[in-house]
Amino acid sequence: MKKISIKDIWNNKIKINSLITIKGWIKSKRNSKLGFSFLSVYDGSHINNIQIIAKKKISNYNDILNLTTGCSVEIKGKLILSIGKKQKYEINANTIKIIGWVYKKESYPISLKKHSNSFLRSVAHLRPRTNLISVISRIRHFLSYEIHSYLNDNGYYLINTPLITTLNTEGSGDLFYINTKKDNKNNFFQKKAFLTVSGQLHLETYACALSKVYTFGPTFRAENSNTRKHLSEFWMLELEKSFSNLKNINIISEKLIKHLFKKVIEKCDSDINFLSNNINCNIVKKLKKDINSEFIKINYSEAIEILYKKNKLFNRKIFWGSEIYKEHEIYLTNNYFNCPIIINNYPKKIKAFYMRLNDDNKTVAAMDILFPNVGEIIGGSQREERLNILDLKLKEMNFKKKDYWWYRDLRKYGTVPHSGFGLGFERLISYITGIKNIKDLIPFPRTPKSAYF
Amino acid sequence: MKKISIKDIWNNKIKINSLITIKGWIKSKRNSKLGFSFLSVYDGSHINNIQIIAKKKISNYNDILNLTTGCSVEIKGKLILSIGKKQKYEINANTIKIIGWVYKKESYPISLKKHSNSFLRSVAHLRPRTNLISVISRIRHFLSYEIHSYLNDNGYYLINTPLITTLNTEGSGDLFYINTKKDNKNNFFQKKAFLTVSGQLHLETYACALSKVYTFGPTFRAENSNTRKHLSEFWMLELEKSFSNLKNINIISEKLIKHLFKKVIEKCDSDINFLSNNINCNIVKKLKKDINSEFIKINYSEAIEILYKKNKLFNRKIFWGSEIYKEHEIYLTNNYFNCPIIINNYPKKIKAFYMRLNDDNKTVAAMDILFPNVGEIIGGSQREERLNILDLKLKEMNFKKKDYWWYRDLRKYGTVPHSGFGLGFERLISYITGIKNIKDLIPFPRTPKSAYF
Repeated sequence: MKKISIKDIWNNKIKINSLITIKGWIKSKRNSKLGFSFLSVYDGSHINNIQIIAKKKISNYNDILNLTTGCSVEIKGKLILSIGKKQKYEINANTIKIIGWVYKKESYPISLKKHSNSFLRSVAHLRPRTNLISVISRIRHFLSYEIHSYLNDNGYYLINTPLITTLNTEGSGDLFYINTKKDNKNNFFQKKAFLTVSGQLHLETYACALSKVYTFGPTFRAENSNTRKHLSEFWMLELEKSFSNLKNINIISEKLIKHLFKKVIEKCDSDINFLSNNINCNIVKKLKKDINSEFIKINYSEAIEILYKKNKLFNRKIFWGSEIYKEHEIYLTNNYFNCPIIINNYPKKIKAFYMRLNDDNKTVAAMDILFPNVGEIIGGSQREERLNILDLKLKEMNFKKKDYWWYRDLRKYGTVPHSGFGLGFERLISYITGIKNIKDLIPFPRTPKSAYF
Repeated sequence: MKKISIKDIWNNKIKINSLITIKGWIKSKRNSKLGFSFLSVYDGSHINNIQIIAKKKISNYNDILNLTTGCSVEIKGKLILSIGKKQKYEINANTIKIIGWVYKKESYPISLKKHSNSFLRSVAHLRPRTNLISVISRIRHFLSYEIHSYLNDNGYYLINTPLITTLNTEGSGDLFYINTKKDNKNNFFQKKAFLTVSGQLHLETYACALSKVYTFGPTFRAENSNTRKHLSEFWMLELEKSFSNLKNINIISEKLIKHLFKKVIEKCDSDINFLSNNINCNIVKKLKKDINSEFIKINYSEAIEILYKKNKLFNRKIFWGSEIYKEHEIYLTNNYFNCPIIINNYPKKIKAFYMRLNDDNKTVAAMDILFPNVGEIIGGSQREERLNILDLKLKEMNFKKKDYWWYRDLRKYGTVPHSGFGLGFERLISYITGIKNIKDLIPFPRTPKSAYF
């Protein structure tokens, strides 16, 4: 009597008439007047439940009649082809062991009815029991796995950059500081320590030794903004490659994204199918379109020209040198191009000190990749590998050279052109799944005023 | 003229006489009196350098004579079989482009001579350029990749548990608290927030929905101890499985570890070979022995009996109910059994509240896996799934029931037996590589008074 996962059934790995054991939870129950009960059971391995036929002859049939959504059970029985049209397989139960009841079934938050996503956030510990959150969890898992797998296959080494740090990469003000109880003067580390906003500078040190590296982990922003697109703790993939320039990372990032889209369609078909039926019927069409067309690549200056002509549409007026805000991103991706776009070569004044100065002395070799509805998912640049220019940039931004001594060392000792990018993982999942609020795309979202659970 | 990685050469993927381009850094240089120069070049993709023959006819030969360790170069040439006996291949260079010089070569910290590991920690940004740290980096990458790969293949879903949290899992005092600059009252999240010491409780919520889950990420301890085995920020794999007991996680963890040992021998052969030649010649023998024998499994009580007889050897005397400290772990693993051991069923008083009470009312279904030299690498348990007993345990430990409301919910609504474990990633790497100080096994170690870089 083999213990199996429900996904093995739906992946046709179990022979008809096998005696099997499954363990899971009741999704729903229907009592037939003909003296048996249909149980729908899930174990989280697949979006589809398996239907169990429990006949009256089962010794604890009276208990079975009392089962409700959420109860945990162990079922032994025979896998058979279903007579019903809704599903291919079902299990004819020999025994049903009830493992755990639901106390006060009326109060169980995950009843069968459809719940709002915001309600589900208030029961984040139970929401993976819903179809939607289980689908998202499996897709998130799979994308993460595929990122590691693809980068490993392409010769990149994972470098775990530190989360506790003492160097403020971007000179950001939105930092979470760290202290210990006894010591709220913040000197456990003998220096002001805070949570990282990016592993890039650390990653560069390894790129300048191992050539191709990446890091994939949580990143933090103490920004006090509560939108659908912001988390205080979110996941970011950062990739860094030596001997490469802006054009190279245009290509690398586009390839990576298309690979992920392809794989998610191929391997998460049942989960994607659920989203197509419940969130947006165009998900697969959209991803396939992106896979099969080249991302539009334009310069910042061209983007500004396009936007400038539509300035009356925007709350924030656009001009050469201005930031490209959400409303502009959405106009470019949703209205003008209707596809993902890569914007290259931004004004140096609106970008970070480490981005490589172009020959025009006005722009830097930076890029952002914008997606319809979601906006920016990737930001990257070629890094300034020339020590004298890096030092000028540090001075312009009022950063202290000595704070960056080790970063500067990379330019002193065998410097190489190199470039890299960061990819916001939850935003990528948002684009793929069509789920708009990224609080629903991470297991336990942290936002201002909210770190419950 | 294909740009290739040096590892492609050593993996025999490049045909003899191919014209190739490589980009990397000078490891060493030797000028022959016969009018040419031998350059040894690395790009971090493989432990072996590639030897370049630079003949006098190369236009910038005078510059080439000035190359020193650490300079970056681009080489175009023909891959040929080496006449020398030291290596199979070498490159006959057509052109050598010097990309980046080493400023003040005498001051370059990564000279060819052998450096102490503690010196290398003081140049953590440059140490991946050494053989040893590049070997460790590739092995660390590979183990991490193989963990994801193995768990994916076995139906586990990766759940990114939060790092910022407001529930103190183990009631630990060694916490890093979080605050923002404007607000050092620690209420950005409206509650005292700190860095996680374990993702387990969060992971359990997903295990009770998706059945098989894991998390793999950084974990924090504000412990003020500076030993070879402690980091303030370290990586931990945590796995949680529903419908499983203590025996199941004995089996699962042993299988996982043996799988990783097998794969690391198979896939990291050149890096392991370097360690065999430079750190400990018995590495492969040790791992193979572990793979081919069953881990010893004993109960805590048996371990105490063994240790009690040798009490005179120990600084901390042993008795039933005492902790098993490092010195005892080492005696058991190195002296008594000389192999990895799993100790099961610890006294409840020395273990966490969530561990399942055994029928004897004195012990809990906990396990630790100890390894020779390194000590504990894995700690796990079956979790208390019975609400009434969990509540008693919370009371005994003076924890507030209401703080654990969501954890208790898992026991109210379809509770299931479940178990899991945490694996200290750096300690695992320490056992595999034979490198004793775990500060050398993570890119940028964070320890008390030290978060430089």
